[in-house]
Amino acid sequence: MANDAFAALAHPTRREIVERLSEGASTVGEASHGLGVSKPTISRHLKLLEEAGVVTRVIDGRTHRLALNPETLTDTSDWIERQRARWERLFNVVGEYLEERKEPG
Amino acid sequence: MANDAFAALAHPTRREIVERLSEGASTVGEASHGLGVSKPTISRHLKLLEEAGVVTRVIDGRTHRLALNPETLTDTSDWIERQRARWERLFNVVGEYLEERKEPG
Repeated sequence: MANDAFAALAHPTRREIVERLSEGASTVGEASHGLGVSKPTISRHLKLLEEAGVVTRVIDGRTHRLALNPETLTDTSDWIERQRARWERLFNVVGEYLEERKEPG
Repeated sequence: MANDAFAALAHPTRREIVERLSEGASTVGEASHGLGVSKPTISRHLKLLEEAGVVTRVIDGRTHRLALNPETLTDTSDWIERQRARWERLFNVVGEYLEERKEPG
């Protein structure tokens, strides 16, 4: 499990970039327009997202096109979902056990 | 969307604690045994998990019982899943458009 994906998503500016890409943005300009942060800061945020495998970049002449990487997003949400599901099962088993103890014979 | 949940999950020790809780650990000792980190470090990790709403703690006499908070886990995985699904839809729409352009009249 990549540590980096959670760290990459642990900043509101980077989550905003991810949301914009999911809504159709594809250039660095579209993904970062109006965020109120400097170009070097945007570059740093994008570098973290790319290193974590959340975002990929295709260089097309002078245009850098950004894309989300659905595999990394799936791996990350799957890990969380697995913990939640296991917890809920455990919780239900304990609940049933307590219910059974309450009922006589 | 709580920034804190992603940050809380962005450390392997904290993810190990979450996995142990999902598998049935319930005391601080069970959740942190053998991790090779000091008690103050464990306390700091637990504090971050609690502040992010990933873990809750019930004090029962001298025993502190830890529990996962499924709502926070659901919110966090749902956010990721929403971005992925929107991205895949967009990707399919663009793919269909390109396919249509390839086919004559």
